[in-house]
Amino acid sequence: MRILSGMRPTGKLHIGHLFGALQSWVKLQNEGHECFYFVADWHALTTHYNETDEIVKNSVELVKSYLAVGIDPEKSTIFIQSEIKEHAELTLLFSMFVSVSRLERVPTYKEIKQQLKDKDLSNAGFLIYPVLQASDILIYLAEGVPVGEDQVYHIELTREIARRFNYLYKEVFTEPQPILSKVPKLLGTDGRKMSKSYGNIIPLITEEENLKKMVMPMVTDPARKRRTDPGNPENCPVWNYHKAFGISDEEAEWVKDGCTTAKIGCVDCKKLLLKNMKEKLEPIWDRYNTLTDDYVRNVINDGNQKARNVARKTMEKVRDAMKLDYKFLRK
Amino acid sequence: MRILSGMRPTGKLHIGHLFGALQSWVKLQNEGHECFYFVADWHALTTHYNETDEIVKNSVELVKSYLAVGIDPEKSTIFIQSEIKEHAELTLLFSMFVSVSRLERVPTYKEIKQQLKDKDLSNAGFLIYPVLQASDILIYLAEGVPVGEDQVYHIELTREIARRFNYLYKEVFTEPQPILSKVPKLLGTDGRKMSKSYGNIIPLITEEENLKKMVMPMVTDPARKRRTDPGNPENCPVWNYHKAFGISDEEAEWVKDGCTTAKIGCVDCKKLLLKNMKEKLEPIWDRYNTLTDDYVRNVINDGNQKARNVARKTMEKVRDAMKLDYKFLRK
Repeated sequence: MRILSGMRPTGKLHIGHLFGALQSWVKLQNEGHECFYFVADWHALTTHYNETDEIVKNSVELVKSYLAVGIDPEKSTIFIQSEIKEHAELTLLFSMFVSVSRLERVPTYKEIKQQLKDKDLSNAGFLIYPVLQASDILIYLAEGVPVGEDQVYHIELTREIARRFNYLYKEVFTEPQPILSKVPKLLGTDGRKMSKSYGNIIPLITEEENLKKMVMPMVTDPARKRRTDPGNPENCPVWNYHKAFGISDEEAEWVKDGCTTAKIGCVDCKKLLLKNMKEKLEPIWDRYNTLTDDYVRNVINDGNQKARNVARKTMEKVRDAMKLDYKFLRK
Repeated sequence: MRILSGMRPTGKLHIGHLFGALQSWVKLQNEGHECFYFVADWHALTTHYNETDEIVKNSVELVKSYLAVGIDPEKSTIFIQSEIKEHAELTLLFSMFVSVSRLERVPTYKEIKQQLKDKDLSNAGFLIYPVLQASDILIYLAEGVPVGEDQVYHIELTREIARRFNYLYKEVFTEPQPILSKVPKLLGTDGRKMSKSYGNIIPLITEEENLKKMVMPMVTDPARKRRTDPGNPENCPVWNYHKAFGISDEEAEWVKDGCTTAKIGCVDCKKLLLKNMKEKLEPIWDRYNTLTDDYVRNVINDGNQKARNVARKTMEKVRDAMKLDYKFLRK
């Protein structure tokens, strides 16, 4: 299968991204699929058009995170959206037959407008961003798109656009399927939704000392006020972390029994978590730290070139299907 | 001054286009301005996304008409919009800070929707086409844009977009001025607005025999029912044709006197018009007929290349201003 997915370069990744997306990206790659993973920097503009200072830096950081978690440029194509101008061309062409009211009906359009009240989201770019997203996917003729629940609707719209194009002009596009992976919901260290603006995230790339500082004061089962109170893992945010970071059956038994009977304290439980987190994260940090500028630059330049070649081939088919191909000029 | 203008390749040109636009394009070129004249084929999609069969053919025809009327590829750059992908990129970037409600307020948005009720104009491409138009103009840093009255508002929006970009990011764009030329209003041969759908147009490229067939039955002053009735040139559509096609003072006297006193008939008057039309149009037809495919292909390819170079330079400035320039990759 050809797989495509991307992330917006809006800041450092946190461990939620690892389980929410990156882990499944690596899995798909290692199952032998042909994967395209990109940095959606134009998408960052839809909500941050007037805060562009960090976009390039964040984009490069994002690629480094992709590499650190195990995306292998020998197997997967890593590229930066804005370097492939064909995405913009296809967006323009698609916008010719996608209605304004259809875009206004996209649930996230109104939702995000309500959520991000401090942002100016009245711009046309924000309205047409699902069309840009459809172009990102369809230009690579992707068959599978690993996404979160909140993105399933966008994939549906992408399928609609593919069908409409194929119907209006000629069969060019495949209809991609969303690939959903079940992930344990990781809350922030304060028990609220993990969010940069709450300052409660655990960054993907950090150091052991920092990790400890963030994990040890983590909110646990609110019923367990004292060391001697019994707790319930099901009500404890730390328990989901344990599950995400791969607790063994034996360790799980120890936690469940110890917590519900107050035989162990939250500190004991968190020490175990830290050990397992370190096991999972340290190889990522180590890989991250070996990445040189030269290597990252080569990865991106190679990836861009590979992506561009595929995108250009699709655009040839698109122009041919739409009868916008000036073959006359290339005789 | 750097000048830019374009036409949509929606069919054969008629003599209205000659006086409404092309004549002033040639004049601006011959006054020594640096002119860019293009074929707005992507714009044709905003209203004709599902009728693309003729776009390429019409685009090449349009270039041939430009050449026939005297646009000189040694002096002016003639190019095809869709061959310069950077227009799409800039449109996407501009759309990030142009609000949907601003675009809905563009007068032509509602007007054309009402006029073209048989067309599907609910598409996002039709909404954002003033942004595409702004990109067409600004990407060449054009200072003057020859337009008709109905386009002045779009130039105002283009100026607004230029100012907003310069304010948000960095001074990159010049604010273009509309260049209006006073043109005598030429009605169709039946006295109604000249329109392909009325079948009352006089094509720019035709033959003498055809011209005669169209001019001789032209509607004249409705008060002059019989040869012996006196007429009034001010109420006669033919009179505007006379003025457009360059009637001499002496001839004008002859027409005015002859018409108002019924000394001459409409047939005499039209014969004079035909002579003057032929004088103006024959050199255009002759030039048109000498254009070989090879020549036209070279003109377009050269023009595209020149336009692309200018557009790319502007986009470098744009990306630099928006801090979207991956200099890191080009070290």
